Amino acid sequence: MTNAERKKLSIIVFSGDFDKLTAAFTLATGAAAVDYDVHLFFTFWGLDAIKQKRGRAFIGKDWLTRLFGFFMGGTAVAPVSRLNFFGASGKIFRALMRKNNVATLEELIDAAKELNVNMYACEMAMHILGLQKKDFIKEVKDVLGVATFLNISEGGRTLFI
Amino acid sequence: MTNAERKKLSIIVFSGDFDKLTAAFTLATGAAAVDYDVHLFFTFWGLDAIKQKRGRAFIGKDWLTRLFGFFMGGTAVAPVSRLNFFGASGKIFRALMRKNNVATLEELIDAAKELNVNMYACEMAMHILGLQKKDFIKEVKDVLGVATFLNISEGGRTLFI
Amino acid sequence: MTNAERKKLSIIVFSGDFDKLTAAFTLATGAAAVDYDVHLFFTFWGLDAIKQKRGRAFIGKDWLTRLFGFFMGGTAVAPVSRLNFFGASGKIFRALMRKNNVATLEELIDAAKELNVNMYACEMAMHILGLQKKDFIKEVKDVLGVATFLNISEGGRTLFI
Repeated sequence: MTNAERKKLSIIVFSGDFDKLTAAFTLATGAAAVDYDVHLFFTFWGLDAIKQKRGRAFIGKDWLTRLFGFFMGGTAVAPVSRLNFFGASGKIFRALMRKNNVATLEELIDAAKELNVNMYACEMAMHILGLQKKDFIKEVKDVLGVATFLNISEGGRTLFI
Repeated sequence: MTNAERKKLSIIVFSGDFDKLTAAFTLATGAAAVDYDVHLFFTFWGLDAIKQKRGRAFIGKDWLTRLFGFFMGGTAVAPVSRLNFFGASGKIFRALMRKNNVATLEELIDAAKELNVNMYACEMAMHILGLQKKDFIKEVKDVLGVATFLNISEGGRTLFI
Repeated sequence: MTNAERKKLSIIVFSGDFDKLTAAFTLATGAAAVDYDVHLFFTFWGLDAIKQKRGRAFIGKDWLTRLFGFFMGGTAVAPVSRLNFFGASGKIFRALMRKNNVATLEELIDAAKELNVNMYACEMAMHILGLQKKDFIKEVKDVLGVATFLNISEGGRTLFI
């Protein structure tokens, strides 16, 4: 089967919320497992999911972007979009996922890497947040603008999460 | 017109917010009314919309999932995604909808049933939240994984709400 | 190239959050710049982005809708979906955008007008919120229901933001 014939799923990963990231990576790995070409375009808070350092870290070019980076905090402390209970909800979710044998977010991200899910970082959001390509995990293939992403994802479905 | 020729709209209903559920069901019923095949895939907080018991209820397999179920609370107490004012906003919205002769969320859900909108529950989210098929309204046709949903929704547009 | 052959991107702009509106208009202008037909369908909180009066204003048919309009507040005071810090976050974002030479939200909206991005307002949400066509900027071409929007956006990708 040539590349042109493969089904395609693209996701603009805007959110940095624990539950939405879990949804994005569940869709991405589920699609890749049934042989879709999958393209994830990380932007704004979503960039948190592909940072090299998991957990809180002062990353960025100046104090303002570093402060923002600290508060974004990485997947280990990503808040839940609802009923967050000052962070407790993420821990409850993780406990429920482990107990019920559902893959955790970090396991899903690792699975995405192994399934060759394509990951890109949004150029404009990196400018705003003062991030550089070296701040991200090595699986992030490229830094893209909107036009290039639209071109790559053309001919398939695109979700905004 | 055969099924293969019908237009298709699919929505991944992730949110349990009153306003987003209203948007999802407005799109679903609007599309079904002009003869689209409509597929709703409920996951995470969105599962709240298809629970049999409307309003707060302790549903789930153990105390932790039951507690979560209680806080999710069903469509009758679903929060608004913005300006929630501790729940008052949902009531204001309902009042505005009634006053301006716009269908309320419950009316939209009932319309979706009558228009044969297809409803599915997400297997993984049910595992996490400890929910079973019997907890949902009978119009929920099936419990699906991501791969099956992607297959059903292929060839049409898919939204993530 | 005829209209039928042009690529198409449609966005249902539901959110009124500063960061999500920025994402929506970045996608819209980026797509229009590479010759896509772009259709923006503003609904619920998203209607805030196309109001004539920027900043807080009491707009609407009665006190309840006017009060809601006041709290929605327009793009100048639009909250950020996360880490809002009682409004400070929007200001920080603006500062970061200016400092790093990224277009601000208002500049993006102006660019969308110049690039002939099509803008529509959702009829139902206008009914709920007591808004009329005259409350919006003149670039808003039409007031549409769901069925008409689905028809206009058919054959291209549609995002829900």
